[in-house]
Amino acid sequence: MQNAPPVETRDFIFNQTMLRIRDPEASLEFYTQVLGMTLIQQLDFPDAAFSLYFLGYVRPDDEPLPQERIARTAYAFRQKAVLELTHNHGTERQPAPVYHDGNSEPRGFGHIGIAVPDVEDACRRFGELGVTFVKRPDEGRMKGLAFIADPDGYWIEILNPEGLASAV
Amino acid sequence: MQNAPPVETRDFIFNQTMLRIRDPEASLEFYTQVLGMTLIQQLDFPDAAFSLYFLGYVRPDDEPLPQERIARTAYAFRQKAVLELTHNHGTERQPAPVYHDGNSEPRGFGHIGIAVPDVEDACRRFGELGVTFVKRPDEGRMKGLAFIADPDGYWIEILNPEGLASAV
Repeated sequence: MQNAPPVETRDFIFNQTMLRIRDPEASLEFYTQVLGMTLIQQLDFPDAAFSLYFLGYVRPDDEPLPQERIARTAYAFRQKAVLELTHNHGTERQPAPVYHDGNSEPRGFGHIGIAVPDVEDACRRFGELGVTFVKRPDEGRMKGLAFIADPDGYWIEILNPEGLASAV
Repeated sequence: MQNAPPVETRDFIFNQTMLRIRDPEASLEFYTQVLGMTLIQQLDFPDAAFSLYFLGYVRPDDEPLPQERIARTAYAFRQKAVLELTHNHGTERQPAPVYHDGNSEPRGFGHIGIAVPDVEDACRRFGELGVTFVKRPDEGRMKGLAFIADPDGYWIEILNPEGLASAV
C-alpha cells in the first residue's frame, strides 16, 4: 500500500490539460458540438497574440456557471477535468498540421480520454458527424475501445468504464 | 451564446490524460508524494511489455475506492481528472529524457495544471522536496503562477484559481 497523501496536498485539484490548437473555430465546434463540452471561459491576450479557451462538462447538478467574468474564470480554474486550448493567433492561416500529436517520434503526450455510456453508439454518431477515427471499436485487439482524432490530430480515447475494466 | 450540448453527450466524462513515462518508480514517487495523487490502479501487460498507472485525487467525500480489481479499474475509468501514465518496459534503463514534453519543436501538448490553495506555500514545499522549476512564482510576467517539471520534464502549472482569475 502506498503512503497516505501528504497533508499539504489535501486541497490540490487536477484542474487542466493544455493543448495547442491551430484553429479555434474548428476546435470549439468539435469540443462543444461533437464531444458536448461547454466553453467555460475565453481569455484573449491581444498584445501577446494568443487566446485561451477553457472547456469542460458542466452538468445540471454541478456548481452553477458564474456569469461575472472574474468569478467565471476562477470557476474554470477550480474545476476538475478542464481542457485548456491555446491558440497562437495566425496559426489558423498556416497549413495543417501545425502541432504534433505526440504519438509519432518524438513521442510523449498520448491522448485524452472520454468515458461514454456506449462506445458503439457514440462512435456511430461520431461517424455520422464526419469525425476522423484512429481506431474504430471493432478494429485491433482491444474491441469496444475507440480512438478518434480532434481537428489538430490529437488522439481521444472513447471508452466505457465497465466494458473496458472487464476487458483489461 | 453557444448551443446547448448535444443530448447524446449528456453522460460523457472527461476521464483521463495520458503521458508516457520513462521510469514508473520516479513518476509514482513524484505524483503520489509530491503532488499527493493516489495510485488508483496499475494494469500490467507483460506480453506487450507495458504497464499503465492511473492516478488521481481521491478525497474523503468521494465515492469510496473499490478494492476488487475490476470494480477498481472501472472506478479509474469513470472519474474525472485521472492521469494515466504509460510505461513501456525497459525505458527506465535508457538515458533520460526518453520522451518529448511538447514545449519545444515539434510543439503540441503544453502542460497539465494543478489548482492549489496557495502557490507560494506549495512552491516552497516543492523547492524543499527538490522539484525542478520551469518558472518560479516570482519570475516572468505572470506573478503568482508557477510551472514545475515532472521526472520526464512534462510541465505542470501550479495555480491558485482566485489569484489567477484576478490577474488575467
